[in-house]
Amino acid sequence: MVIDDKFYMKLAIDEAWKYQLLTYPNPAVGCVVVKNGEILAIEAHKEAGMSHAEVNALKAAYLKKHANDTLKIKKSSREIHEYLLKNHNNFFNDCEIYVTLEPCNHIGKTPSCANLLKELKPKRVIIAHEDTNKQASGGIQTLESVNIDITLDCMKKEAYDLLYPFIKWNSGTFVFYKMAQTLNGSIDGKVSSTMAQLYVHTLRDKIDLMLIGGNTVRTDKPTLDARYIAGRAPNVMIYSKNKIFDNNIPLFKVPNREVIISDDLFKLLDYKFVMVEGIYNLMDALKERIDYIVLLVSPKIRKGVNALNEIDMDFKIVHENYIGEEKILFLKRTK
Amino acid sequence: MVIDDKFYMKLAIDEAWKYQLLTYPNPAVGCVVVKNGEILAIEAHKEAGMSHAEVNALKAAYLKKHANDTLKIKKSSREIHEYLLKNHNNFFNDCEIYVTLEPCNHIGKTPSCANLLKELKPKRVIIAHEDTNKQASGGIQTLESVNIDITLDCMKKEAYDLLYPFIKWNSGTFVFYKMAQTLNGSIDGKVSSTMAQLYVHTLRDKIDLMLIGGNTVRTDKPTLDARYIAGRAPNVMIYSKNKIFDNNIPLFKVPNREVIISDDLFKLLDYKFVMVEGIYNLMDALKERIDYIVLLVSPKIRKGVNALNEIDMDFKIVHENYIGEEKILFLKRTK
Ligand SMILES: [Zn+2]
Ligand SMILES: [Zn+2]
Repeated sequence: MVIDDKFYMKLAIDEAWKYQLLTYPNPAVGCVVVKNGEILAIEAHKEAGMSHAEVNALKAAYLKKHANDTLKIKKSSREIHEYLLKNHNNFFNDCEIYVTLEPCNHIGKTPSCANLLKELKPKRVIIAHEDTNKQASGGIQTLESVNIDITLDCMKKEAYDLLYPFIKWNSGTFVFYKMAQTLNGSIDGKVSSTMAQLYVHTLRDKIDLMLIGGNTVRTDKPTLDARYIAGRAPNVMIYSKNKIFDNNIPLFKVPNREVIISDDLFKLLDYKFVMVEGIYNLMDALKERIDYIVLLVSPKIRKGVNALNEIDMDFKIVHENYIGEEKILFLKRTK
Repeated sequence: MVIDDKFYMKLAIDEAWKYQLLTYPNPAVGCVVVKNGEILAIEAHKEAGMSHAEVNALKAAYLKKHANDTLKIKKSSREIHEYLLKNHNNFFNDCEIYVTLEPCNHIGKTPSCANLLKELKPKRVIIAHEDTNKQASGGIQTLESVNIDITLDCMKKEAYDLLYPFIKWNSGTFVFYKMAQTLNGSIDGKVSSTMAQLYVHTLRDKIDLMLIGGNTVRTDKPTLDARYIAGRAPNVMIYSKNKIFDNNIPLFKVPNREVIISDDLFKLLDYKFVMVEGIYNLMDALKERIDYIVLLVSPKIRKGVNALNEIDMDFKIVHENYIGEEKILFLKRTK
């Protein structure tokens, strides 16, 4: 295996994918710090409002070589920034920083990463993808202004796949279809593990809207909240021509939730981040609007209904990982 | 992400999996060389008769820091061993060597890796799994005899999964079921890409026996050779009570091939490395004998027969990777 810039960038990209969709409305970003060839840190941005990937990685890298330093107890992005600016003592001058996205250049909830790097002066910054967000871009110029060596477009295609949800929700609507099945495509019964269900509730806590089919609501009588993680229940759109539902179905009783009953899919465009669940019979109608399928695959073979047998679609697997013992596949439609 | 022994060993394990089953009758083994914290090499054993993982990794590591050295043109394991013994100049003294399996201690087709490491004296050797093959074991003692620091059992469970086919074929019979399907479990028509078909032919070239169902032979009239890679056609056992077949079916015309027609599955035990193809209706009868399912998943949804809908089985995903754009899953039955 060749150990080059791509190798290190791949580590950054894979780390970022672990938090894909969970960073909404921010992009998923990963960062690797290499000092004289030694990997000191592989970190990611984990949630909006928390430290950016670069800050997490710079902190972890510094602590790797200063194990009991006070930096350990600094939690907020602002504290870490300030601490590193004061105490870096040129530690990063022989470091190479791999980051999947151009470091941010504006001061938002946290100080700007480009300005931090400008002061820490690493030997080189390797960037997979430029920032498409006008407000945050300009990081490359900031780094160049102090003559930091910059390498652009390393694994740009892979970084684009990582950035794609952000690009979509930033300029309109990102819609993903959450599906769960066995290896052989069965969707019957309790398919997913507890850990996979926790993950689904974590997603529900982040989204702007959940779209679900009227038949599923009538049959399953679901709650559709995020109680497993004590999270926020998302607003729900029930896709149905027939507007009459039994008000005792639990989803209607969740407080602080908006429920829309409609068969107008254009309403999705009023939201930025939409998850579709359990609406297999509408896959054909919806498929033009779906950006990703997030497919949870339980490693078992079971008798049961194969919901997708009437559909014809091609995908690229943009990423895969594990949720506990189950596979999670991120699929992008190609046909 | 924590960057520790497990991190480096995981790189070695993943590299080895790329050649899983293809190293028969040898085990799949991976090796990573880290010098003062810098990863210099991530290599694996690729095929029986070729250099072991350690030799490939030591060569790559040395060349990483001596780019145009004569070592570059040394191809055979014996040449590389001899070259490194003469020219190492203590290069490896500050190296840590991660290897998924105890270095071999006997001189077979190639010289012993333990003896090579004994002379190169790395700072530390980290071993995931001891060698279960009595003939080759003793490597740990050889290293200890010159006081090389040794760390044992790092990611042992993961290394066991990697080693499992070797353990089985070494002590009896390893049987794997090669399946190909779409995301939704359809097996109809041409499911696999050209690259996946090349991979299947590469497997056929390695195995001792292919088991196939009589109905598949009668319907598909297959050749079952390894022509895509100009490889050796495997011997075939046709599982069938009815012993009468049309001799014009291509598989009977392949030269230097044995064909058995039998319904006695105990015959499998006469072979060490068996692949099962296209015999879904016998999955239930066979499942007790199957060690792994090698599942190729094409990233598309298609209408079609879902062959496995009558079966109830649980698996652990022991590894997954890509063959081109398709997923390959290595599944071990757990129920
Ligand atoms: Zn930032
Ligand atoms: Zn060896």
